[in-house]
Amino acid sequence: MNYLKPEQTYVALLHYPVYNKHGEVITSAVTNLDIHDIARVVQTYGLGGYYLATPVKNQYRLLAETLEFWQKGTGKEYNPTRSRSFDQTKVVSSVAAVRKELGKNSLWVATTAKKRPNCITLDDVRDWGERHPDRNTVFLFGTGYGLTDEFISSYEHILCPIEGGTLYNHLSVRSAATIIIDRLFGR
Amino acid sequence: MNYLKPEQTYVALLHYPVYNKHGEVITSAVTNLDIHDIARVVQTYGLGGYYLATPVKNQYRLLAETLEFWQKGTGKEYNPTRSRSFDQTKVVSSVAAVRKELGKNSLWVATTAKKRPNCITLDDVRDWGERHPDRNTVFLFGTGYGLTDEFISSYEHILCPIEGGTLYNHLSVRSAATIIIDRLFGR
Repeated sequence: MNYLKPEQTYVALLHYPVYNKHGEVITSAVTNLDIHDIARVVQTYGLGGYYLATPVKNQYRLLAETLEFWQKGTGKEYNPTRSRSFDQTKVVSSVAAVRKELGKNSLWVATTAKKRPNCITLDDVRDWGERHPDRNTVFLFGTGYGLTDEFISSYEHILCPIEGGTLYNHLSVRSAATIIIDRLFGR
Repeated sequence: MNYLKPEQTYVALLHYPVYNKHGEVITSAVTNLDIHDIARVVQTYGLGGYYLATPVKNQYRLLAETLEFWQKGTGKEYNPTRSRSFDQTKVVSSVAAVRKELGKNSLWVATTAKKRPNCITLDDVRDWGERHPDRNTVFLFGTGYGLTDEFISSYEHILCPIEGGTLYNHLSVRSAATIIIDRLFGR
């Protein structure tokens, strides 16, 4: 029995603060397939929403225009199915904007590919959902080389990384988000 | 207990014969993130291999050059982790070439987003793996709008589609492959 409700579960993809491959803190560029792939998973599993966050003005505008194309513009006629995948997608400037919408009562879960000593499991998240049936859950994902340690450490709840049974552990953020949502709500 | 062995499990991504959005049979163009995302999942879960198949000569060459860049060229120095994700990746011209390498004794499983009356489940695949511990399993995925009905029908084993609990069912091929591999070998 799954006590977490998909419609009360949210995904936020943050383009800042994340690492680049040299371990420097950057704002990553928006990637078209991050928008599409995760939006399609969010829609397929009936989640509450998908937030795309970037503080860079022209990237924000690019995202807003892309979404408008699909939600209202030519894209809607061109491909109604693709258009529908964006019903739950929103562009915001930062995680603070997501927090403003979803409130402090939500369970905020930061994700990372690095194992933290006190990380929580998806079973822990489900238990929380059972104890708080009226509250939302928000999963935070980072693009690039992942959310910074400082950012991650500012969250009480950090999800244990996905393990594939090998020493190689470099999934795309698209794959990681897909797996977490499927493990929670698939089947 | 999972009887299927990851190192005996293969993924093939076919760019032909697939549908476009009008239901016409086409050869789809190679997409960069299809190469990367699925290769990273294959490597993370320790699968036997990942075949990228296209019959179009310049697309084949593009793929071969991309792989060579990562496997041997500048990409290996630039990003060794990314390079390693391609250890198990190969370019071929068609599914026939994959068949030549993996043989007729393998279990060939075609995938589609459309539900077929006699589709098999991942439990069926696991059972088969238990009964045939020395044989390979190959999952066939189509790009674009999916493998054609005619192609799918030529396979005895067709996997039941992933269901997310809503009427919307339009995952990217990257997400679909990720989910199937995680369901088989994750945790």
